[in-house]
Amino acid sequence: MILYNRHHWLRAIWHFHTGKTAISLIKRLFFVGLYVTAVTITELTFYDIKLSYTPAEFFGAMGILLSLLLLFRTNTAYDRFYEGRRTWGALVNTTRNLAVLYHAILPKEAIEERLYFAKTISNFPFALKNHLRATRDFTELDEAVIGGIAELEKRSHVPGGVVSQLRNRTEELYRKGTISDAQSINLNTLLILLLDINGICERIKSTPIPFSYNFFIKFFITAYLIVLPFTIIEEFGYLTIPIVLLVSYVMVGLEMIGEEIEEPFGLERNNLPLNQLSQMMRVNVHEIFGIYLPQVEKQAAIPDFMVVS
Amino acid sequence: MILYNRHHWLRAIWHFHTGKTAISLIKRLFFVGLYVTAVTITELTFYDIKLSYTPAEFFGAMGILLSLLLLFRTNTAYDRFYEGRRTWGALVNTTRNLAVLYHAILPKEAIEERLYFAKTISNFPFALKNHLRATRDFTELDEAVIGGIAELEKRSHVPGGVVSQLRNRTEELYRKGTISDAQSINLNTLLILLLDINGICERIKSTPIPFSYNFFIKFFITAYLIVLPFTIIEEFGYLTIPIVLLVSYVMVGLEMIGEEIEEPFGLERNNLPLNQLSQMMRVNVHEIFGIYLPQVEKQAAIPDFMVVS
Amino acid sequence: MILYNRHHWLRAIWHFHTGKTAISLIKRLFFVGLYVTAVTITELTFYDIKLSYTPAEFFGAMGILLSLLLLFRTNTAYDRFYEGRRTWGALVNTTRNLAVLYHAILPKEAIEERLYFAKTISNFPFALKNHLRATRDFTELDEAVIGGIAELEKRSHVPGGVVSQLRNRTEELYRKGTISDAQSINLNTLLILLLDINGICERIKSTPIPFSYNFFIKFFITAYLIVLPFTIIEEFGYLTIPIVLLVSYVMVGLEMIGEEIEEPFGLERNNLPLNQLSQMMRVNVHEIFGIYLPQVEKQAAIPDFMVVS
Amino acid sequence: MILYNRHHWLRAIWHFHTGKTAISLIKRLFFVGLYVTAVTITELTFYDIKLSYTPAEFFGAMGILLSLLLLFRTNTAYDRFYEGRRTWGALVNTTRNLAVLYHAILPKEAIEERLYFAKTISNFPFALKNHLRATRDFTELDEAVIGGIAELEKRSHVPGGVVSQLRNRTEELYRKGTISDAQSINLNTLLILLLDINGICERIKSTPIPFSYNFFIKFFITAYLIVLPFTIIEEFGYLTIPIVLLVSYVMVGLEMIGEEIEEPFGLERNNLPLNQLSQMMRVNVHEIFGIYLPQVEKQAAIPDFMVVS
Amino acid sequence: MILYNRHHWLRAIWHFHTGKTAISLIKRLFFVGLYVTAVTITELTFYDIKLSYTPAEFFGAMGILLSLLLLFRTNTAYDRFYEGRRTWGALVNTTRNLAVLYHAILPKEAIEERLYFAKTISNFPFALKNHLRATRDFTELDEAVIGGIAELEKRSHVPGGVVSQLRNRTEELYRKGTISDAQSINLNTLLILLLDINGICERIKSTPIPFSYNFFIKFFITAYLIVLPFTIIEEFGYLTIPIVLLVSYVMVGLEMIGEEIEEPFGLERNNLPLNQLSQMMRVNVHEIFGIYLPQVEKQAAIPDFMVVS
Repeated sequence: MILYNRHHWLRAIWHFHTGKTAISLIKRLFFVGLYVTAVTITELTFYDIKLSYTPAEFFGAMGILLSLLLLFRTNTAYDRFYEGRRTWGALVNTTRNLAVLYHAILPKEAIEERLYFAKTISNFPFALKNHLRATRDFTELDEAVIGGIAELEKRSHVPGGVVSQLRNRTEELYRKGTISDAQSINLNTLLILLLDINGICERIKSTPIPFSYNFFIKFFITAYLIVLPFTIIEEFGYLTIPIVLLVSYVMVGLEMIGEEIEEPFGLERNNLPLNQLSQMMRVNVHEIFGIYLPQVEKQAAIPDFMVVS
Repeated sequence: MILYNRHHWLRAIWHFHTGKTAISLIKRLFFVGLYVTAVTITELTFYDIKLSYTPAEFFGAMGILLSLLLLFRTNTAYDRFYEGRRTWGALVNTTRNLAVLYHAILPKEAIEERLYFAKTISNFPFALKNHLRATRDFTELDEAVIGGIAELEKRSHVPGGVVSQLRNRTEELYRKGTISDAQSINLNTLLILLLDINGICERIKSTPIPFSYNFFIKFFITAYLIVLPFTIIEEFGYLTIPIVLLVSYVMVGLEMIGEEIEEPFGLERNNLPLNQLSQMMRVNVHEIFGIYLPQVEKQAAIPDFMVVS
Repeated sequence: MILYNRHHWLRAIWHFHTGKTAISLIKRLFFVGLYVTAVTITELTFYDIKLSYTPAEFFGAMGILLSLLLLFRTNTAYDRFYEGRRTWGALVNTTRNLAVLYHAILPKEAIEERLYFAKTISNFPFALKNHLRATRDFTELDEAVIGGIAELEKRSHVPGGVVSQLRNRTEELYRKGTISDAQSINLNTLLILLLDINGICERIKSTPIPFSYNFFIKFFITAYLIVLPFTIIEEFGYLTIPIVLLVSYVMVGLEMIGEEIEEPFGLERNNLPLNQLSQMMRVNVHEIFGIYLPQVEKQAAIPDFMVVS
Repeated sequence: MILYNRHHWLRAIWHFHTGKTAISLIKRLFFVGLYVTAVTITELTFYDIKLSYTPAEFFGAMGILLSLLLLFRTNTAYDRFYEGRRTWGALVNTTRNLAVLYHAILPKEAIEERLYFAKTISNFPFALKNHLRATRDFTELDEAVIGGIAELEKRSHVPGGVVSQLRNRTEELYRKGTISDAQSINLNTLLILLLDINGICERIKSTPIPFSYNFFIKFFITAYLIVLPFTIIEEFGYLTIPIVLLVSYVMVGLEMIGEEIEEPFGLERNNLPLNQLSQMMRVNVHEIFGIYLPQVEKQAAIPDFMVVS
Repeated sequence: MILYNRHHWLRAIWHFHTGKTAISLIKRLFFVGLYVTAVTITELTFYDIKLSYTPAEFFGAMGILLSLLLLFRTNTAYDRFYEGRRTWGALVNTTRNLAVLYHAILPKEAIEERLYFAKTISNFPFALKNHLRATRDFTELDEAVIGGIAELEKRSHVPGGVVSQLRNRTEELYRKGTISDAQSINLNTLLILLLDINGICERIKSTPIPFSYNFFIKFFITAYLIVLPFTIIEEFGYLTIPIVLLVSYVMVGLEMIGEEIEEPFGLERNNLPLNQLSQMMRVNVHEIFGIYLPQVEKQAAIPDFMVVS
């Protein structure tokens, strides 16, 4: 994610244009440039097919329909981006709430239990992050009991494994009487949320906008850009080239940003800073339990300069 | 559902255009083609009725109203599609949460109970899927106790039967004391969700957009396409034919995709991959309970090449 | 409600145009037709007041504002229609959940209690339906205990009475010990929903779109249609008449459908099939309790041909 | 609120135009009328500054931006209106649910307690209504125990006081054992809602649309209306006056209705009928508890002719 | 926040234009003014590059796309502003509900406990406010027990510390038996909300609109304003200057207000009055507990003249 502020505006623009999406955008603009230059030179030199008398109302209506479709695309992509953000926000709340509640419930002397829950709760965001980014990396997880990580490595669905570890230990304490009926009910309302959050993220990741809409919008933009130079060449002359490029930049750009942010869990420039959020949760949870965490971990939770992954 | 990625773009387009909706769309475009060809030839050869002086503002305003109606159609259809997806996502979460919770609650030695709940929880998505697709197929269900499937076969509403089996066994364990008060309350918050999910899917399936809107939008598109060739023929000549076809492709296409995705539980190209999701839930639930599942079942949970049903 | 499918398209259109709303729409179109014919003949024969030079941009901007207002009208009406549907869907879920839960909680031998709850739960949708349609009809209710219906007849708010009957019997069983603490809490989460659903329906029914908006949109359409013929008559001649009628059909039609569906509990063509839904709930609830229901009741739950009330 | 039906359409229009908002609207139209008349006469007699060659595309684009802003204004105002209505609907549900639950929980012989809760629950809507309308009127409240009203009079936040009375008596009964653990939990889920509802209403009341947007839209409309006559005068001549008035009526009207309904708890024509709703809750609650209420109270709950406060 | 009413309209406009955003807006308008003056003088004196024949349909379509993007910007910014307001509204409800519940639960003689909870609950909004405004100011917090503030000062996440203090004391009372099972469950549903509210505010603060959209809209407005003078200069002459300034005022203004209100927790003119809200919560909570609060505190809860921070 690009964290921008008013004073580093230029640097932010630079970062944006060096991202994968932007490079791919520039490639496409290059092809548009080739096409429109060829058309312009051909038209202005040999006067072949001229469509300059396109009826205003017709072309305008198509432009409006296309604009509305781009708005639809932008809205749905942004909703997905924001739902992803909201869900990770809910994860922040849930991990903190769990920490506060376990800390208050556990008897003063239960240091070992506190450590167990601090580590296991902190593992969940990392497990979820790696699950969403389809990497099976266990180095970021913190071993709560001997064999805990090994147990997770056997699983295909790791976040579910972490929740199982939390649940099993909690029910054990419940059977022992350390956790009462009421406390079990209170914890349950929070523990349920972990797998809900996990499922929402999986859904966002696995369900892009239906293929038909994706195809239609791309098709429509292409058709619009192919026809565009013919309709303005008579009045703009060689200015047609920069103007078509500008329009392409806006339309293709809008479409590509939509594609990028609708799956916000990757490592692209507009994606969410899952690394930093996970680290922040670890710091918060340990602080609440009153457990020491090395300074280097705390540092990692502070957003770096501008590009955060 | 078509699972597309950037590298198989052409193949995805091919799959899209061989779907039932696309074939039906192509049929309609064929009739539009016949009509516009007839009009163009007649007009350009015999100069009959010419409407080329359509006042721009009037036709433009109609185009905007039609565009806004198409946006409304697209929005409501997409909302329904996405609500269906969200609901099946909630089902994924709920089955996992139930598995984690039963697994933690049941005493270590209760192997038989674990097997019962693993199978019955896994049956629910399959029962719901078949209920939504209006097929009474019990071969995908896993018999949890002898006579369990036979009991379901007597029911008209099968998903409700599966929930009843879960509830009855749970209350039995509660009466025996295996499940405590607090655990009963915790389980209840999850068990309620199963029938809620079932009901939401039934609602989406049984309530299309009100007939009047469906009819109005179709009527409006037809009227627009009938009038369109007359208003552009003077300036476009024989180019009128491809242009009207293009506009038809976009407008009729948008309307038909809306119709397809607003009931997302079928087997169409843009519908949800209920088979695969159900299989995935079975795999997840068994993993959480630590119960062996044959490799062939796990394979079935991985999305196949591109067209997933 | 009109249940339409692709094969009975023409019949569905016929049903739509014989509904009360459509007849009222046709009446209005008749007046529009009279007006536009008078204007056209006068203009084309006596050349009185001609407004053909209406500035395009001005009239176009008004058309856009009107289109946006119609979209606003359509959106809010549809939202209300769909909220009504969602609420009745929630009622389906709640009655099934209540049936499943009471069935699991009650001891095997409590046949009488089962019958009581099956009948009383099934009564709620019918009571709500009649309350919303402002008819005090008790014939569809099923007497659960002697005097049960008579007690309801004394009430002004019948659905509240049915819920009271459910609650009172439940608390009685709770005091007896048949229902435990946890079960009471579990039942409560569902019983609360019944009056919530009831209240949501009452709200939708009693709060149409604010009068000012209703009036403004009607006023705006009227003004637009009065001015329209003058601005297109020069170019269209006698074609003005069908064209103005077409535009009226779309605009007045959109507005009237909005008015019809924003209160979706009536008996109009686009309203919800409350009869059939209530009947379906009765069938489902009885099946879950394992209680025999005559075949004729089951038949009534299946949607009839196409017009369902 | 104006309750309108199809048969009293004219009377409803009359009521609308005698409201405070409408009178203020007419005042503004009067100034617009003066301005446009002055401009028209000056222009047509002395040919001063003529802007008739306003480029269509430019003025059209501004009109679209303004239309979209008006839609934004209308949408946010309506959302607020409807959220207010939804919240009062939730209050109806909550008071009924509380009545049903207390009635079922309390032992048969606890007549006095029933009376206490019936009166105190019924007091809440009236207290909230007066709080929202910023009047400290205690005459509508019903004294549940001697000194109850006096206690409320000492408070600055009266609705909070009523909830405190409910809570305190409930916890007292809980300590006595009349209310069990489970019942306390069940009641709590409902009692929480009262202050939530109260807070939502306060929020709607105290947070209008941000000042900047309010100012911008007003500024934009004014600028548009100032320029409008110059751009159409050449083609419309003296017809400019009624046309500009018409446009003003729509634009200024939309903006003013938005301002009126975004704070829907007042006594304006489009505001919510809080008096009647509160009275209805009192009637419902007393019916559920089976407590006699004088006929005059029941009458007051029925909406009067058309203007309901 | 500017609290405006109809009678101080001019003063509110003045306050708006002296805010930081407005000053920054005026600066930008100044540069636009320089540019457009230069262009106008150059064009009208030396007739260099003239673009007056911009095809209407093309420029109009771009204007519509830009308008739709501005609407998207305005909608998302407003949603964020309103979500922030809603969240602080939920905080008001939760603090009141907690106060009412603790007050009802605690035995009559527990004066000290009441004082503890009144102070600690009241501290939460202030801690959250300072956390959101990134100031570590503890002077507004009220010391509930000796060392309470010192404990918070050690924390990096202060609001979490306040919740921990509430939770710890509550679980202590639960272990002592002062708070029963049911009461613990009831309190839990409210205590969870505090950290949820905290997390939602942090999310709004840390997630602006994705950089790409921010950049695109700014880029698009700039391009539009650069081209605008050339397309209208022929018809408007020297009037081009005020007209371009007017359009800039609207477009740049809309964009800047969006930027201001999308992070509504600052001290800008359109931001939320967090100081006053926090103070109001303190007054309400103390009133509910029946604890004396100095008059000066109550005064601070009443919104001052017009600019509230």
